[in-house]
This record gives sequence, C-alpha cells and structure tokens, in this order.
Amino acid sequence: MRTIYLEDTPLPEAQRTLVERAALPRRTETVPTREALGRVTAEPVYAVVSMPNYHASAMDGVAVAASSTYGADESRPVRLRRGADYDVVDTGDPIPAGRDAVIMIEHIHQVDDDTIEIMEPAAPWQHIRPIGEDVVAGEMILPPYHKLRPVDLGALLAGGVTTVPVLMRPTAAIIPTGTELIEPRDTVERGEIIEFNGTVFSAYLTEWGAEPMYMGIVKDDYDAIKRKVLEAAETADVVILNAGSSAGTEDFTVHVVSELGEVLTHGVATRPGKPVVTGIVNGKPIIGLPGYPVSAYLALEWFAKPLIESYYGLAPIPRETIKATLGRRVVSVMGADDFVRMNVGRVDGTYVANPLTRAAGVTMSMVRADGLLRIPPSGMGYEQGDEVEIELYRPRSHIDHTLVVTGSHDLSLDVLSAHLRKRHPGRFMVSSHVGSMGGLLAIQKGEAHAAGVHLFDEASGEYNVPFVEKFAKGRDVVLVHLVYRQQGWIVPKGNPLGIRSVHDVARAGVTYINRQRGAGTRLLFDYLLKQEGCDRAEVYGYEREAVSHLGVAAAVAGGSADVGLGIYSAAAAMGLDFVPIAEERYDLLMSRRFFDSVEGNDLLELIRSDSFRSDVEALGGCSCRESGRIVYEK
Amino acid sequence: MRTIYLEDTPLPEAQRTLVERAALPRRTETVPTREALGRVTAEPVYAVVSMPNYHASAMDGVAVAASSTYGADESRPVRLRRGADYDVVDTGDPIPAGRDAVIMIEHIHQVDDDTIEIMEPAAPWQHIRPIGEDVVAGEMILPPYHKLRPVDLGALLAGGVTTVPVLMRPTAAIIPTGTELIEPRDTVERGEIIEFNGTVFSAYLTEWGAEPMYMGIVKDDYDAIKRKVLEAAETADVVILNAGSSAGTEDFTVHVVSELGEVLTHGVATRPGKPVVTGIVNGKPIIGLPGYPVSAYLALEWFAKPLIESYYGLAPIPRETIKATLGRRVVSVMGADDFVRMNVGRVDGTYVANPLTRAAGVTMSMVRADGLLRIPPSGMGYEQGDEVEIELYRPRSHIDHTLVVTGSHDLSLDVLSAHLRKRHPGRFMVSSHVGSMGGLLAIQKGEAHAAGVHLFDEASGEYNVPFVEKFAKGRDVVLVHLVYRQQGWIVPKGNPLGIRSVHDVARAGVTYINRQRGAGTRLLFDYLLKQEGCDRAEVYGYEREAVSHLGVAAAVAGGSADVGLGIYSAAAAMGLDFVPIAEERYDLLMSRRFFDSVEGNDLLELIRSDSFRSDVEALGGCSCRESGRIVYEK
Repeated sequence: MRTIYLEDTPLPEAQRTLVERAALPRRTETVPTREALGRVTAEPVYAVVSMPNYHASAMDGVAVAASSTYGADESRPVRLRRGADYDVVDTGDPIPAGRDAVIMIEHIHQVDDDTIEIMEPAAPWQHIRPIGEDVVAGEMILPPYHKLRPVDLGALLAGGVTTVPVLMRPTAAIIPTGTELIEPRDTVERGEIIEFNGTVFSAYLTEWGAEPMYMGIVKDDYDAIKRKVLEAAETADVVILNAGSSAGTEDFTVHVVSELGEVLTHGVATRPGKPVVTGIVNGKPIIGLPGYPVSAYLALEWFAKPLIESYYGLAPIPRETIKATLGRRVVSVMGADDFVRMNVGRVDGTYVANPLTRAAGVTMSMVRADGLLRIPPSGMGYEQGDEVEIELYRPRSHIDHTLVVTGSHDLSLDVLSAHLRKRHPGRFMVSSHVGSMGGLLAIQKGEAHAAGVHLFDEASGEYNVPFVEKFAKGRDVVLVHLVYRQQGWIVPKGNPLGIRSVHDVARAGVTYINRQRGAGTRLLFDYLLKQEGCDRAEVYGYEREAVSHLGVAAAVAGGSADVGLGIYSAAAAMGLDFVPIAEERYDLLMSRRFFDSVEGNDLLELIRSDSFRSDVEALGGCSCRESGRIVYEK
Repeated sequence: MRTIYLEDTPLPEAQRTLVERAALPRRTETVPTREALGRVTAEPVYAVVSMPNYHASAMDGVAVAASSTYGADESRPVRLRRGADYDVVDTGDPIPAGRDAVIMIEHIHQVDDDTIEIMEPAAPWQHIRPIGEDVVAGEMILPPYHKLRPVDLGALLAGGVTTVPVLMRPTAAIIPTGTELIEPRDTVERGEIIEFNGTVFSAYLTEWGAEPMYMGIVKDDYDAIKRKVLEAAETADVVILNAGSSAGTEDFTVHVVSELGEVLTHGVATRPGKPVVTGIVNGKPIIGLPGYPVSAYLALEWFAKPLIESYYGLAPIPRETIKATLGRRVVSVMGADDFVRMNVGRVDGTYVANPLTRAAGVTMSMVRADGLLRIPPSGMGYEQGDEVEIELYRPRSHIDHTLVVTGSHDLSLDVLSAHLRKRHPGRFMVSSHVGSMGGLLAIQKGEAHAAGVHLFDEASGEYNVPFVEKFAKGRDVVLVHLVYRQQGWIVPKGNPLGIRSVHDVARAGVTYINRQRGAGTRLLFDYLLKQEGCDRAEVYGYEREAVSHLGVAAAVAGGSADVGLGIYSAAAAMGLDFVPIAEERYDLLMSRRFFDSVEGNDLLELIRSDSFRSDVEALGGCSCRESGRIVYEK
C-alpha cells in the first residue's frame, strides 16, 4: 500500500461535493394511504371526490326551503307540514331537493306528528355543509416532497385518495470491518470488541427515512472488504463502511474505493471525525466512517443525512439552539471545525454549559450530552464565562426540568435518579463527576443544584462541613446527608497480595491506581499516607488517575493495577474483593435556593423514603441510617 | 333517552381527572436491544461488561514499558528489541502484560526486523484506551422511562446489554360510528361519508407510542355500539369512540358509558371540541370524540396523549412557539378556551398570522395550518396588529423559507407550488384565497410576498394595473404576468338550461352561485350585468358566495346551483361544461423587495420555464404565451 495522507477539506465543501456528485436517484412506489404515515409524496396529490360529496345537514333537525320561513316570529309562528314543507334530517344526511336550510331540532315546536311551528326565519344555507366544504374534487391536497402527517392521511382519504405515490425508502448497506469485532453478546473475552456502531447507524438511518441493510462483520482483509463493498454497491443505494477510513497500514477504505471507483474526499477539517472517506462506487455514494463511535456518528450525520434529505426534497430541520454560559474553558485548534459534546443545565434561571470528555471513543458522552458546541475553524476556543450557542440534543423543556448534580460520584446517585424518574416523570437528573472539590466550586459558582461531597478534614476529624464553610462562602447552602459508605482497598478476588494497610500499598512490586486531584478518596489516601508516615513517592502508580470508583475497580479488574482505594459497591460491581478501612460520610451540598424549591423539597422527601434507602443499602457496603438529615445550613 | 346537557368543564380539569382516575397500568416486556429504537426503558439499565473490556491500543504502533524509554532524545535514541522490549500492536489490540504505553508507528525508526529506535520518551498510558474508558461494568447506562435514541442502543450494546426491559405499547381501540360512514374508496354516493378519522387517530396514536386497534365502522345503533365498546374495553387499554359524543337524539356515547361504567366529563369549555365524553368502562379509560375532524383531532390530543405520556413517564414536549402580528381580527367568546388554526408567514422579517376557517368540519384547514392560536377563557379575542403567540405545527425553519401567496386563486398556483418544491427542495409555498382585492391589500400591508390578481377596470378596459396604482400606493411593487385564462359559465354537462349570456343567468328559474366580495370574478359578473342592463336583484342566488372557482363548480356539480362564473379548469375538474365568455389576465403582484430577492428571481425563472408553462396549459382553458412578462413596476 502506498502511503496516503489525510486532507483537510472544509466540511461544507466535502458535504456539497458528495450531494452534488452522488445524489440518490428518486424512485416512486404507490402505497395505501392508510399505511403512508411518515412517507414523502413523490408527486402533487389531487382530490378525486369532494368531501362532503353532497350538501349535508350539519345538525339534527329539519330541512326546509328558507323562503318558506320568512316572516316567522314569536307572535306569528310559521306552521310547516312534513313532506310538503320539511323533512327530518340528522347530522350528515343529504339535503332533500328543494330544501336550502336546516333548522335545529331545539328550535322546533312539534305541533303533531306531521306539523311543526317555528318562531324565527331560517337563513339560506344555515346549518348546511355545502358540497366540497372540506375538500373539492380536483384541488391539490398536497404538494410533492411532503412528509405525511396524521391529518394529511385524513385529507387524502376525505378526497377519495386511497393510494398515494411516495418516494421509495433508499437502502443503505452497513459494513462493519475489524478483526477484533464480535456480534453483540453479554460476555466478552480479552481482545474482543462488541460491534455496536452498525446498530447505531441503522437506527439513525431509519430515523432519517432510509432502509438499513446490515451486511455483517468483515475481517480486516483488503480482498474481503473489497468483495463486500462491491456486493453492497450492487444491491444498496448508499454504502456505509465503518472503520479503516484513516491513513494507517490497516486502513483499507481509501484504497478499496479508489480501486473500485472514485474517492471524492479523504479527510475533513473537523475534530473529531477527520478521517472520513467519501466516494463513488458503481455510481453509488460510499461513506467510509472512522472507527471511534463519536467520530462515526457525527460523520454519518454530516454525510448520510444530507444525501437522504436531498433525495426526499426535504429541507433539514435544524436542532433547537440556546445561549449558555461556559462553566469551563474550551480550547480549540485553528483550521478545523471543532465539535464538543456539552452538558447543559439550567440553574437559577441561567443556562450553564460544560464540556464532556473529548475522547472520540466514549459513546457514553453522546448518551450524556445535552448538546453540541461547534467552534468554527477560525476560532481558538472560549473562556470560562463566555456566552456560547449550543445545539441541543434534548428538548429544551427537558433541560429546564433537569436537576444538575455534580461533585463526587456515588452509586446512590444512580438510584436517586431512577427514583426521581419514577416518582416525578416530568423531571430528570444528570450527574457529572468532577470530584468533591469540583462539586463545592460548582455550587459556589451557581452551576449546579446539588453536589456530592465526602471530604475529610484532618484538623477537625470531621467530614465536609469545614470545607463547605471555607469554600461556599457568600452562598446560602444546605448540606443534606445522603449515605454512610465503606471506603476500602479494592483488590483482585482472593486479595493475592494480601493488602491490609497503606504500608502494603506502598510496598515494592505493588501497583496502585489513584483518583484525580480534588477527589475525596484521594484526600483520604493522602491522609492515610501521612498518618502512617509513608511517602507518596513510594507508591508506584500514584500519578495514574481514574475519575470514578468504578474506574479504579476497572483498573484492578483489568490487571493494570493491584489495588485502589474506593467504595464497596464498585468492587462488588466488578466482582472484586474489598478490604474495608473506614466509614465515610457522603453528603449532598445544595444551594439554599434549590433546597427551598418544590423540586428540592421533593428530592428531600425521596431521599428520606424507605424505598430509596432500601434500594441503596441493597448495593452493599453502606448505610442509610441517617439519609436526609440536615447536617449544616446557612 | 333522557335529555342531557353538555357541561362546561375547564379543559385542564377534565384532562387531570382522566389521567388521575384512569391511568394506564404499566406492563413491561423485554426486547432485543437492536430492535429497541424509540421504545421506553421500564427500569434503570446497568452495564454488564466494560467497554473496552481490556486495555486496548488506541493507535497502530508498538507497546512498550514507558520506563524503558526514559531519557530518549534525538541525540541519544533508545534502541528496543522486539519481544524483550516491545510488541507490535494495531488499534484495538490488547496491551501485552508488562507494557504500559503505545508509541505510534510514525514515531518509530526501524533499524532491522527486530530492532527499533525511538527519539523521545513515552508517557505512561499514552495511546492506550484503559479498560472501561467508555462503559464500566455496573454503571447505570440509562435511567427508567428513557426513550431510546440511536446512541443509547450503542451504549447498551457496548455495555453487553443485548436485551432491554421496555414498557409495552398500550393498545388503543378505535370505534368509528355512523350509519352514513363507508370505508375509504375513490367513488362516493350521495349520503355516504368516507370514514377517515379512524386512520388519523391511528396515525396520531402510533406517533405517541400506542398501538392502534381499528375496530371497524359501527352503525348508529345503541346496542351495537354498546356491544362494541364492551368488546373493546376487554381487549384494549384505551377505548376511542368517534362521533355521538354530543347531546342530540342520536348521540349515544354518554348513555353507553354511563350504562357500562362511569362518565367523568361530558363537555369541556373549548371551541371547537366542546362535546367530548371521558369515562371509565371495565377499568379502562374511554374517550368519546366529536364527529367533526378538527374537534376530534384536538380532543384526541388533549385526552389520549397525556394518558400515553403519563404511562411512559415522559414529560410532554411543548411545540415551538413564535410571536406573530395578527393580519386580521380574531374574535372569541368568554368562558371557553378558543383554538384557532392559523397561517403564519414570514414577510420582510416579520411573522404575520392569519386565521383559517373556524369550521370544525374542514380537515384541510388542519393540513394548511402552520400553527394554533389559543385564546384563554378570559379573552375576548385580538385585534388586527396585535402580537400573539402561535404554537407551531410546522418547523419554524420551514416557515422561514415559505413563500406566502395570497389573493385570487388559480390552479396554476398549485402547479407553481409543485414546481417550486421540486426545483428548490428547501422552499415551500402556501397560498390562501382572499380574492384579488384582499391580495392587493395584503401586499400593501406587507403580509404576503405575492398575490394573484385579475381585476378588470371598466373605465380603462385594462386588467390589474389601475387597481395596483390606486391600492398599492406607497409600496414598491412589480406586477408579473402569470396566465391568460378563459372565464365562462360553469354549467352541468350538456348545459340543460342553455346558458349563453348574462340574460340567461338572470332568467326566472335559474339559480346562480356567486363569488365572495373582492373577487375579480365577481367584479367581472357585476360588469357584465351592468353592460347588459341587468339588475342583480333579478339574479337568484346572487347573495350566495363561494370562495374559489372550485367551490363554484362544486355547487353546480352538487345541483344546488345551475350556473356560476368561473374558469375552465375548475369546470373540467368537476366534469362540468364550460361556456367561454372572456379571456382575462391573471397576474402576480409582488413586493419589490421580494421580486429583487434570490427567491423572487428563482420564482420568475420558474414562471418563465417551459416545463411550468406546458404543465399549466395542460390544465386547459388558458394560455401561457406571455408568462413571466413584467407588466408594471415601480
């Protein structure tokens, strides 16, 4: 393979080239109107019959000739005879010949079976639905390229249109490549990666109106990939090839496309998502996506969606945007469109946005993202406090009803989130993990409603309160106790190295996994080191940081560390052993304003509920004996 | 049947009562994650495995122990031996035991097959995706009551979750009632009404996440309806009964519900949609909807949607709203929530809203509506020029790209709309029919981009220009010729009354159907009357107004008029005969600003295109010999 370098094609240019050079040819099919919801009309659709198809009574009553009622009033009622002067009609009945008005039954005085009296004249055409009032035969009910909504189906049927010409759904072949890939299952061996991008692509393509065709995993083999691409380009309208789109030794996409057809773009000026291939094979557009999930999903939206929208003749509907204040600095490189996944919360009436991880391999960051910040190629990024525009992934109304929890993570927060969703369906909770100190600062800056904290103060021997007094200065806050939990050594099953004390951890040959700066667990570890007279330089791995308890447990489970400090539930979740060393107090720090709100009250009630406490205690290694106690307030 | 009167229950109260008294019980099923798009989680979902499940190389290169590279620089490269010091790894490969960093292949100098040199030290954990970087076993991937998006499916599969517990779709039985109803078809006899509400309900319910069960048409028979309701209440979670919800002699819903169960509400304080029945039969909610389509669809959304949302624990997502200036006065009655379908257009940067017909029988008004104006019970309505809030039915971005055409209607506008959609997929055209004079005024007031006009000036014998000079004063406008068309007498097949002249129309025994005030065709008729010395009082039916050419043709086709004045294509569409009497010039009046815009230029190009002209001439009775000529400008 000759060496190939990635281009830096501007994204809009790459998008335009693909849509112009490889537009999908339109094909039409006729489907029953009753089954056409969400389909897109291929042609203008005209009414075949009128609705109503005759002059119809709009009321229960009698049909008369209006002229026969003129002059009627209370003192001189007009008497009418059935058959000669009137006919009884119900709503929807045809108006008999010679009648041109309907009088409501409530306004009739029945004299005998065949005689009525009326007290006021009828106006011509009153209470009559004239022929074609709703739909007139021959009128255009819908233009072409119109996406059919429920009411459209009604109007079509009303106009006698029982089948409708719609654009066929374009088919999209999805080819996942990678020797390490396996089809989804619930046990995974070392060296295996579950193939899930294909499912995500299918789901997106379905939402956009295409019909996905999953072609099965292909190994990293040039000829195998080539054969599969050829097969796909013969059967599908679009070909999506996943991974191998970069310029490395096993990146075959660009070579396959250039051998079988034409490469349009290789590399776009974006971050993430740069290594993209677009091209044409057998007259069909082919999109080579990067392997990392976040890059792949963004690039799919950039290239596949416009092809489909253009096929349907539908204008893209931009996502809702909001202005938000940046909680943290976001840096960017010049020359590339930078896309940063963001958390957005509404605290005290202000939208605050914070960047999530920028690692393109973290699918969960797309799950957790409330929106996307786009930094144009000319931008260097934004400073904390800048106002930025965020393209929302969730409805704004949901963000407005989302409880923003930050600080240190505890599994009880997941339980709390689940209970909140169940008890208050209109409300949501998002939690980000920035450590206890980060949580304190977020409350101080008004960026969160609540923060999980477990900070041990060496001087007083007390948890949290001394830190809150020091760092939440000038803010009215309430500290609510959530859970007592065991901290201890997380070690492999059977504790092979016999870790008991901090001395054991500092021993030669023992690899430790630490927590990030500002984490309460790290403070506890530092305290233990000091108390036992150990030096952090003696601890191999002190510099390596995990950002959550589960991250620590994962490192131990994966064998890259022998021990870490963390909580019982994390060890249990990963099937590890746990050596308890201390019980710590994990509290929720809330702004006074939130605490006093309806939402704050409801949250407190949840925390104090038996069902929440028992669900948390079921996780093990913790106690809810005082959950919901007010520890401190000002 | 005893007489029953409708209540005036406030809408929010009626909604609350139904959701509280008749909430749908939640049922769970487990589905494959791959097929779970759009479903709603029933429980929190936790990861079963970590992603990645091992420390994985993030690059193509070599895995080393970082410590073995310390001190390397350009002058003193470090030499490493395969096996002893490094292993070759590709992206995704597991990191071999004893290695803790990856060096990219680009940064390696190959000395021989088994020896490399490196010029800078590796940092521990560089280019390694640590175990659990994306998903950590045991973490909560999703909370309960979460609607699954494409990325959610990816995260679930990444976490080894191959099946997911979701809420079952609640079933909704749909029972259309009415002796005059027929299943949809393309020929309709007098006295027959096509049943289409059931299809619209099904489509809405599907969109909201329920599973519709269409139960077939039931005649207006108390016992038959009762039997069907009982059957439905045994098999479905919700019962929807359509028509018969009012208080008339054949309105059985309230009686059936009260015999079989309990009536919660009969009549809500809304307009339209007042005659609604809600109740409980066999423990299931039953919703009795009015027969008129618009009332029925609004009421379905008011009552069925909250039941389903509440079942799924999902907060309603409000529609986008905009502020718009009212083009016409909208009156309202006190004491009821008034819902008015609105057209909304953006002209010269301002949103202008105008009410559509308020007749609840006009399905097409829902098709044409851009949004809904809600006037609260305390309001008397709004004056022209008031700023009002409109809840949008179409995306705002589509409204922003919609060409607003008003004035007199001509079928060539439908052709133009279809051509516009096809040639410029991002643009839309809506046309409302307010007559030529109404169109002039709309351009004068800046409420439309273009208006169709065909106004004959008796004094000068000229079309349009004298009116434009008089009424568009102070506005820069351009008059573009669209089509010459035949005006003539629209008469039944064979012209049984032998209509040739205006004298024939004024004859005794001939019923005329007129156009609304301000319509060019009406002016033409008035001119003909005057020219021939006829008095309008001689014309029977002069006072009865249709608002379009097709409306006139429909009246003749339906037998309620013998003749009307109109254009050839309308007569042809309804299978009627046509007696030509004059060729008139139908022009489009545009604001100068629109004419000069890109959109205006493109429209002119369309009007002048051969394909547009030939499609219009194919309608018959018209000529495009000068389409696109600039008739007048200032």
